[in-house]
Amino acid sequence: MNTSTAPQVKSTEAGERAAACIAQFANETGAYDEEAASGRLKAIAAEQEAAADGTWTPSTEELHWAAKVAWRNSNRCIGRLHWRSLHLFDRRDIRTAGDAYEALIAHLRFATNGGRIRSTISVFSDRIRILNPQLIRFAGFRHADGSITGDPMLADFTDFALRLGWEPARRGPFEFLPLILQAEGEAPRVFELPDDPDVALRVPIRHPELDFEPLGLQWHALPVISNMDLAFGGLRFRTAPFNGYYMGTEIGARNLSDVNRYNKLPEIARLMGLDTRRDRSLWRDRALVELNLAVLHSFEQAGVKMVDHHTASEQYLQFEALEARQERETTGDWAWLVPPVSGSVSPLFHKEVRNVIKTPNYLMRDEAYPDFQRTEGTGCPFKRG
Amino acid sequence: MNTSTAPQVKSTEAGERAAACIAQFANETGAYDEEAASGRLKAIAAEQEAAADGTWTPSTEELHWAAKVAWRNSNRCIGRLHWRSLHLFDRRDIRTAGDAYEALIAHLRFATNGGRIRSTISVFSDRIRILNPQLIRFAGFRHADGSITGDPMLADFTDFALRLGWEPARRGPFEFLPLILQAEGEAPRVFELPDDPDVALRVPIRHPELDFEPLGLQWHALPVISNMDLAFGGLRFRTAPFNGYYMGTEIGARNLSDVNRYNKLPEIARLMGLDTRRDRSLWRDRALVELNLAVLHSFEQAGVKMVDHHTASEQYLQFEALEARQERETTGDWAWLVPPVSGSVSPLFHKEVRNVIKTPNYLMRDEAYPDFQRTEGTGCPFKRG
Repeated sequence: MNTSTAPQVKSTEAGERAAACIAQFANETGAYDEEAASGRLKAIAAEQEAAADGTWTPSTEELHWAAKVAWRNSNRCIGRLHWRSLHLFDRRDIRTAGDAYEALIAHLRFATNGGRIRSTISVFSDRIRILNPQLIRFAGFRHADGSITGDPMLADFTDFALRLGWEPARRGPFEFLPLILQAEGEAPRVFELPDDPDVALRVPIRHPELDFEPLGLQWHALPVISNMDLAFGGLRFRTAPFNGYYMGTEIGARNLSDVNRYNKLPEIARLMGLDTRRDRSLWRDRALVELNLAVLHSFEQAGVKMVDHHTASEQYLQFEALEARQERETTGDWAWLVPPVSGSVSPLFHKEVRNVIKTPNYLMRDEAYPDFQRTEGTGCPFKRG
Repeated sequence: MNTSTAPQVKSTEAGERAAACIAQFANETGAYDEEAASGRLKAIAAEQEAAADGTWTPSTEELHWAAKVAWRNSNRCIGRLHWRSLHLFDRRDIRTAGDAYEALIAHLRFATNGGRIRSTISVFSDRIRILNPQLIRFAGFRHADGSITGDPMLADFTDFALRLGWEPARRGPFEFLPLILQAEGEAPRVFELPDDPDVALRVPIRHPELDFEPLGLQWHALPVISNMDLAFGGLRFRTAPFNGYYMGTEIGARNLSDVNRYNKLPEIARLMGLDTRRDRSLWRDRALVELNLAVLHSFEQAGVKMVDHHTASEQYLQFEALEARQERETTGDWAWLVPPVSGSVSPLFHKEVRNVIKTPNYLMRDEAYPDFQRTEGTGCPFKRG
């Protein structure tokens, strides 16, 4: 269906976007026949007319479908094979920061699930804002000499939390940041993230052969993105934190190894007895592989779900094949899909993929909504970074 | 200078391209003052007028400059810091395949230089064609059962050489392919590549600690690209083989490891005693690093120039800084610049770069000449592959 079959909807951009979305929903799910879709569009048009800004209220079913398809359309995600498995908590009724906090803790408990991680999204109304980039992150504490204990990427956010009155119990390298939530018309409030493995599970990083104990490494089990908007049908849900589970390299080849993050490769190389004075000894490459091995080993030992980058690459190819069977092109962002370790070993390295943004999708907070005309095949508002 | 300062040149596309090129040459080298440039353009315009197809004849100096700048503009090349060091052999006078063969052997001798490799280009007229994709490559011999001894990527070319009457002395995994050269109006001719280390140097691949002997690996010292055209000033030199020296990963993380090339990672992993039944053992990643270490070690032992991917990344950043000092933007192709091993460890992984094609440049045989209007900043005719 396109807008020509729904002439009763005023042909505004907002109306077109809603109509295209409902048509896609009806087509993919079979939830609306033509008559039901037509009725639904009339109701949406009336709501848009009244709201003046083109806003409309998706049903929980529409919302759930959109959240799943947004995952399916996430060009940078290698794990999209599992897009249908996304759980939804519809939290649009919540009005206070305190209630939002309870809902987020419930999300974390449900998703953590003793390590058997469940991919989950909680969708709130715009009356609630989450200021954290992810729900679970380790603080970065600045010292007078400019050095940082913890995650340097979170140092600014840590400063912000401290200015708001956060009083960390310790200032170690792996301290959970608090949640900073803001209800409409109110100041941001700081809520402690409980150091409870049912809510925020830690995994100590050990190597199967090498003695990693002196490094004292760990990471959290759950990556919960809270700085991307769920965009579909001309709408943009700005408070829609979601999680999958980790691919090992996200921790082993970025969080713990990037020079501007925990930067652990030099320590690991020394522990391995490698010659760190010569680039040609490939000490960085050797240390990187062993760190990644330790991450996979540790999550497995802890019973926490994680995928390795080889399996993830294969699963991406399966996803692509299933999509092709539905006559859908799998769009993607090559630079993000190819794993940051042993790139050329991944079959994805050798593929071409078009980085065209479809909706529904997850957009960075400051990203433009994809141009409606362009979602059909050309143009890309995304930039690497 | 733009075309408005050279009104005597007829404003054709070919004329504009030539004028822009001469202006850039004059500006960068100082070889022509305004009067000399104007005179040169008049001569070019006359030649273009006579040739009807817009062809003109660059001087050897202009050609040498263009070849160097084409290297500087090669978005996929990480080694551009050294663009000024390119040697030129101007071979436009050669008319026979036999003379071309002698010139190519001379190129290989000069560039190999006992391992102290010299970056070199030989430019021929269009009367000579080189049918090989690189001057030095190992054959891929097909067996009746579909398996291949040697380099599978060269199996089609090997078939072609055999059809032309090539009689290989052996059919092992590392046999040099012959040169196949064609003079205008004649059939392609097969010329044996002498198995002489002064012309085509082999490097046996050994590991500093592991016993790689049973693998029997080797590679050639010199990568000489012969399937890219030198394009500038509206001209396209289709026979312009050029070489730099290898970055280790080209051999260790592509030629010897790609599944559709020599595919040696499983053998290396078994030799290392790794568990190849489980992706999570990261056997591919561990084998890949050791193979790359062996390549670097072996070239060093053999006294053959080679750069590792860490040093190359740093040199690219130096190149970019030097270019910025000249107020030139360094364009690049991220997917090609980031090394295929330990991607996120390279500083290039964390940079954004625009893949805009400038001229002079090297273009694949079947690639379109960049649109003249677009060379100033937008658009990209290149595709990954």
